[in-house]
Amino acid sequence: MPYYFTCTMKSKKVSASAKFDNRPIGIFDSGLGGLTVVAAMKKALPNENIIYLGDTARVPYGDKSPANIIRFGIEDASFLVSKGVKLIVVACNTVSAIALQEIRAKFADVPVIGVLEAGVSACLKAKPRSVAVIGTRATASSDSYRRGIHAVDHGISIRTIACPLFVPIVEEGLADNEISRLTIEFYLKPLKKELPDMLLLACTHYPLLKKSLQNFLSKKVRIVDSAEACAKFAEEYLKKNSLSASKSSTGTERFYVTDMPDSFFKQAKKFLGRDLEHFQKVSISEN
Amino acid sequence: MPYYFTCTMKSKKVSASAKFDNRPIGIFDSGLGGLTVVAAMKKALPNENIIYLGDTARVPYGDKSPANIIRFGIEDASFLVSKGVKLIVVACNTVSAIALQEIRAKFADVPVIGVLEAGVSACLKAKPRSVAVIGTRATASSDSYRRGIHAVDHGISIRTIACPLFVPIVEEGLADNEISRLTIEFYLKPLKKELPDMLLLACTHYPLLKKSLQNFLSKKVRIVDSAEACAKFAEEYLKKNSLSASKSSTGTERFYVTDMPDSFFKQAKKFLGRDLEHFQKVSISEN
Repeated sequence: MPYYFTCTMKSKKVSASAKFDNRPIGIFDSGLGGLTVVAAMKKALPNENIIYLGDTARVPYGDKSPANIIRFGIEDASFLVSKGVKLIVVACNTVSAIALQEIRAKFADVPVIGVLEAGVSACLKAKPRSVAVIGTRATASSDSYRRGIHAVDHGISIRTIACPLFVPIVEEGLADNEISRLTIEFYLKPLKKELPDMLLLACTHYPLLKKSLQNFLSKKVRIVDSAEACAKFAEEYLKKNSLSASKSSTGTERFYVTDMPDSFFKQAKKFLGRDLEHFQKVSISEN
Repeated sequence: MPYYFTCTMKSKKVSASAKFDNRPIGIFDSGLGGLTVVAAMKKALPNENIIYLGDTARVPYGDKSPANIIRFGIEDASFLVSKGVKLIVVACNTVSAIALQEIRAKFADVPVIGVLEAGVSACLKAKPRSVAVIGTRATASSDSYRRGIHAVDHGISIRTIACPLFVPIVEEGLADNEISRLTIEFYLKPLKKELPDMLLLACTHYPLLKKSLQNFLSKKVRIVDSAEACAKFAEEYLKKNSLSASKSSTGTERFYVTDMPDSFFKQAKKFLGRDLEHFQKVSISEN
């Protein structure tokens, strides 16, 4: 059975009688890129309480081996479970692609959704004829978006392109600069010959490049932003399973990170779109 | 007392009667960039046995906090000490800048030299009037090269420039491309107004950009390559302390890494300039 049906299965464990559930949603990423998911979630679900964990001590996960990525993902999820979350959102594409099954097996009582299945779901709903998936080298190599989409619809033509320079370019604040334009051209020039119907941003850093990507390709190409897709996916999941917070809930936020270097606040603001409040440094493993 | 005198102090512990010492030199870096130091070392000291450790499971160190950098550096050095090395070469600028004193304090019986003091030493010997130091954000923020140079010669004018995109550009194999030329211009344009006498490459990835940097600046600017400077520094240290290997030694190499992702061999070859032989994956800590 394809992985993206697992959520539906897991929802059976949730009591249908509960009308509201004000327990927090737990979101984690290897670093701060997942804050784009928090921003989108806050917009779509203002009443939800959110707990975010960024494993900034071990970022990035993309160039680590599968065994380490699974271990890191389980440790991240374990921290969120200890905070009593009602739902875990894996806002890290690398973990979504490689470790989702293992996290679900480990934490059977808490539903787990990933940014990957959110992107796949958004793509399948729009029914494009052709899609270009862009992400880090690890995400591209995993081939997980193509496999996820083709498991349901083999008719969609899919090209996957690794764009490793996009993350450091975004982190350098050069998303709207000649360097990013040239780098976009370097990676995506092959797409210009035959434009895809959809560009799927398979990395939480990439929403900041959306405008430049749209300008380079064409307005005709629909860009699916993984952060927005993830918020939408979570919203539908909560509604379907009577897990939504009450409308009177104020929607608090708590941010945890495993390391806090000098550049922390600048980066956090870039991804969240505002200053970070209520944050704390924690240790989630022996490293 | 400035930090770079510590080596001289430590050398007292070594017996002056030993004519040759065939124990290996231990070199470590956060990842594979330090292989440029191995390559330079192999050229300068072909008879030396070399053990290299790349902490690829936790790379990069540059965006971690000082406390974690110190812990990682001590764990890396501890692994090399367990292999019976006669000298530890810290081929990681971040660790050299932040954790050298702590590593020396922890391993009092093994001399420790760092790529930072090698670069500082090379600069001081050349006696330039003006120097531009380029490195990662962490190295630039540490201000360690300027402090090291000015501790001896206050008359040298120093500009330090952080160039965070250079590492991913080198890792993408774009060192000689329009993107690297544009990025070099983006970071180093201010230098064109008043050329420095010397450009000090304070990152083990940067030797691969040497040609592009020379082309952008001018042939008049002397570029000090930290890998070559480190090999030269180690050579002098070994000679001075009767620690050199015998001329009949074949000079073996052993490479250890803490993680081995898909891109491993491609990256390793780029930095070492040839294929990697005799390598092994090891665990050096609980993560």
